[in-house]
Amino acid sequence: MEADLIKRLIEICGSDHVLHSPEAIELYSRCTIPWSRTCGAVVLPENVDQVSRIVRLCNEFRMPVWTFSRGHNWGYGTVLALQEGALIVILERMNRIHGVDEELCYAIIEPGVSQGHFNEYLKNRGSHLWIDCTDSSPDGSLIGNALDKGTGYSPYGDHFGHLCGMEVVLANGEIITTGGVSEQCPTRYTYKWGVGPFVDGLFAQSNLGLVTKAGLWLMPKPEAFEMFAFRVPDPENLAPVIDAHREMGLRRIVSNCHGFNEFLAVARTFGYPSHLLGGKQSLSEKDIEQLAVEQGLAPWTFVGGVYGSSRQVKAHKAEIAKYLSSLGELVFIGDTSEKLLNSIVRGVRKPGLQGALYKGLKSISHLFVSRLSAEMMGSLLSLYPFLKGEPNESILALAYFKNKEQQPKQNLDPARDECGLIWFAPILPARGNEIQSFVQNIKQVCAGNQFETAVSLIQVNPRTFLVLVPLFFSKKTSEETERAQRTYDQLCELLKTHHYQQYRCTTPQMERLLECNPSYQHLIKQIKQALDPNQVIAPGRYGV
Amino acid sequence: MEADLIKRLIEICGSDHVLHSPEAIELYSRCTIPWSRTCGAVVLPENVDQVSRIVRLCNEFRMPVWTFSRGHNWGYGTVLALQEGALIVILERMNRIHGVDEELCYAIIEPGVSQGHFNEYLKNRGSHLWIDCTDSSPDGSLIGNALDKGTGYSPYGDHFGHLCGMEVVLANGEIITTGGVSEQCPTRYTYKWGVGPFVDGLFAQSNLGLVTKAGLWLMPKPEAFEMFAFRVPDPENLAPVIDAHREMGLRRIVSNCHGFNEFLAVARTFGYPSHLLGGKQSLSEKDIEQLAVEQGLAPWTFVGGVYGSSRQVKAHKAEIAKYLSSLGELVFIGDTSEKLLNSIVRGVRKPGLQGALYKGLKSISHLFVSRLSAEMMGSLLSLYPFLKGEPNESILALAYFKNKEQQPKQNLDPARDECGLIWFAPILPARGNEIQSFVQNIKQVCAGNQFETAVSLIQVNPRTFLVLVPLFFSKKTSEETERAQRTYDQLCELLKTHHYQQYRCTTPQMERLLECNPSYQHLIKQIKQALDPNQVIAPGRYGV
Repeated sequence: MEADLIKRLIEICGSDHVLHSPEAIELYSRCTIPWSRTCGAVVLPENVDQVSRIVRLCNEFRMPVWTFSRGHNWGYGTVLALQEGALIVILERMNRIHGVDEELCYAIIEPGVSQGHFNEYLKNRGSHLWIDCTDSSPDGSLIGNALDKGTGYSPYGDHFGHLCGMEVVLANGEIITTGGVSEQCPTRYTYKWGVGPFVDGLFAQSNLGLVTKAGLWLMPKPEAFEMFAFRVPDPENLAPVIDAHREMGLRRIVSNCHGFNEFLAVARTFGYPSHLLGGKQSLSEKDIEQLAVEQGLAPWTFVGGVYGSSRQVKAHKAEIAKYLSSLGELVFIGDTSEKLLNSIVRGVRKPGLQGALYKGLKSISHLFVSRLSAEMMGSLLSLYPFLKGEPNESILALAYFKNKEQQPKQNLDPARDECGLIWFAPILPARGNEIQSFVQNIKQVCAGNQFETAVSLIQVNPRTFLVLVPLFFSKKTSEETERAQRTYDQLCELLKTHHYQQYRCTTPQMERLLECNPSYQHLIKQIKQALDPNQVIAPGRYGV
Repeated sequence: MEADLIKRLIEICGSDHVLHSPEAIELYSRCTIPWSRTCGAVVLPENVDQVSRIVRLCNEFRMPVWTFSRGHNWGYGTVLALQEGALIVILERMNRIHGVDEELCYAIIEPGVSQGHFNEYLKNRGSHLWIDCTDSSPDGSLIGNALDKGTGYSPYGDHFGHLCGMEVVLANGEIITTGGVSEQCPTRYTYKWGVGPFVDGLFAQSNLGLVTKAGLWLMPKPEAFEMFAFRVPDPENLAPVIDAHREMGLRRIVSNCHGFNEFLAVARTFGYPSHLLGGKQSLSEKDIEQLAVEQGLAPWTFVGGVYGSSRQVKAHKAEIAKYLSSLGELVFIGDTSEKLLNSIVRGVRKPGLQGALYKGLKSISHLFVSRLSAEMMGSLLSLYPFLKGEPNESILALAYFKNKEQQPKQNLDPARDECGLIWFAPILPARGNEIQSFVQNIKQVCAGNQFETAVSLIQVNPRTFLVLVPLFFSKKTSEETERAQRTYDQLCELLKTHHYQQYRCTTPQMERLLECNPSYQHLIKQIKQALDPNQVIAPGRYGV
């Protein structure tokens, strides 16, 4: 990168916050997908004024900036730009909490505020508010995830839907506040649509501005809470189970439920079971079935939260039982049973106890619990905190699935440790048959390339499921990396054939994203041209 | 209007659908607010292709078009443009229903589909889906109201929030579909945010395009439904009642509740009680209190719906009682009691029965019912269908409040009948004290101008209330009309002092709307300039 530009960036942010040494470039240019870009430099502004000055400077130098809130974006392309040598702007130092309104239940935060930090912040101040978190790293940005249309576990799981009121730096460096109202307007953070056109959507999955502050609606802590976990022993029941979730979602009994297949549960819990390969490149359906039997896993498991007053929770539990009981095995877990189960699961792991405690539990407790191995029970319980907005690192184990021996105790970094991970993320209507058949198609593509299939089904709204498929591979072998890329390409072709949309897409894929809708693409281009004539902010992001 | 333009419009839409006779101009240039514009002509296209051709033509002729779905927009400015002599495009002939998905619970409709027609359509086809309606005329457009960020009575009351997937004609005549996905994408109408930037918001309260088709989410008919009605006898309790509604909204017990004061109830039910004036220009607080006592009205009444399974409704009713019982008198009305009460109310009106039936009811029934006069009970019951998505004309009586003698039995048209009505529509955070004190301020302004104050408080989301104030006057006397205008101006000044935003604003007010946020206004201007360089579509609408 031009020395003059670096010098000017240092003038703005200080030399500690402009990273351009070979080591820094190497560190920030890593990713887990089969793709590579080398960034030009990384700059970490501290406030909105610095962001504005950086953007103006980049206009002067015609330097593209790729923007990133904080966290990692593993499996989608980390912080890397479409362009070689771009300037990466990471907003992690902008981590101020500008206010929490306990009455109206919202917070005003900057993009550098992580879900882990903010959850702890609220707990420490004795707040009665809960965040909705993702199952990704606690280090992830709340605003960044919301702008990427991320999804969580609670009734506040539609993250973009719960942003309200933004401060944005435009490509000309101008700082605006959205809503069409004055900055002092008392409903800026409570009434999303504002007056006049609603422009906040322009800054989601796009490159039309950098969001530097936003309001985020928070859920008041419910009087009662339980998790439901539901085993589907017959794989043919997946379709009616999805239909039941659609009905329950529409009737506001549950929201943002997560389902997963047995192989995803295995990947969250263990390293890759290569001892079962016996010379093959991947496990057969039979191998996986056998593994599932050993661990007491059903082909599909669904989990979700039940929130409300004691009366509401009681009513909703009865409804859930009505919709699901005939299709599998249902259990509810509250705070007390979660603690008990967790202590037993931990006990089993201690040498000497030899699982006696867990076996004792098996003989007395609910069918559901009695079937799962202690490891799988532990893995299931690690989802419990997510439903209460408490993020943890458990999901990161996924990324190390094929590199288990490399997984450190702390400071996990799959990109550094050569873990391969790509997320395939199509969105489907909540029709059981359609989703079941598409999952079959995915399995065929994966099996045809000697990969097993891990799948999550996430109800992003009552009418819609995200079918989230992680492709695991080791970046150490180029054959496997190429095979993963081929599999991903074939899955994307499959998606196109069905005209499905993507929830989020990997960076290299973005350029061709809007080709399916040329007149729409033209509209977006006109807006981009008007707001960013020098194509400075993240050119090409999400096809814009 | 230029004869050549008229000729070309007729070529596109046929002579029956281009209205430019003096009678037609007069008919369409009426409105109920103290303001006047004369339109140049009215054109009624039948399909999206005609809309596109009209827009291209207007670019050629540099003719501004003011766009309107269908219905009336009484009290905000009817169909009239900011510009004298503009072409008015009304989409009422585009009234096709392109599909109803009973499983995923949405419909695809054109802007000419009215709420009354669509409700009947669903009933006639035995659909299990309910619309959310406004309390405005059944003739109003569902899409038009949603694009104006209208609000209803049920959990689907955020109308813009329940639009999903649009077809739009841009100012250059291009027809686009939103969502960033292909036209065949199966989640176009189920997943609102699409992929890439979310642009649908650009077409709400704006002039950046004409929406010609959209998806609308519908509520599955609940197993159980009841209306709650709540009297607040002590006006000092308004603040805690609002706070209770905030809590109930946040905890998803109720949504989109409506409160109203005693004078609004009077205006919905009777003509203006001028016999009480005794030479004064307006009624005193004491007069209104006396009137309320006669009719059994409390200072404030709130209503809302309880929806769900029998179990959910039971739980929610218990919660509502928990939050409200100590603050006033609460009653629940279901289908059976609604029918009974209605038949009794009708019975009372029959000569001969002399209210015996109603009095009988009074002596045996709930306190709440026993207090209200039969007329007021009838008026309250007329809200019941709204909660189930069934619109009726009852609210139109409001517009005739000061011109009761002119109100026809059928074919109500307040603009034709010289009724004066302006809506003042500020939006406030859901804090009881703040709303109570602002209502006091409103009352002072109205009283200072010899007007009584009628107020609705509508919970547009858990955190926010719309404070809706109709100003009634007779357009027959210029003194009263001027006084109404002065009152409205003073109310708008009051709103500015508090930095409150408007929910919707009257057309003449639009031009100065975005002055409070110049950098935002600049952004909107840049987008408008890029998409509509000739300023053809509705220039000035909502400050754009």
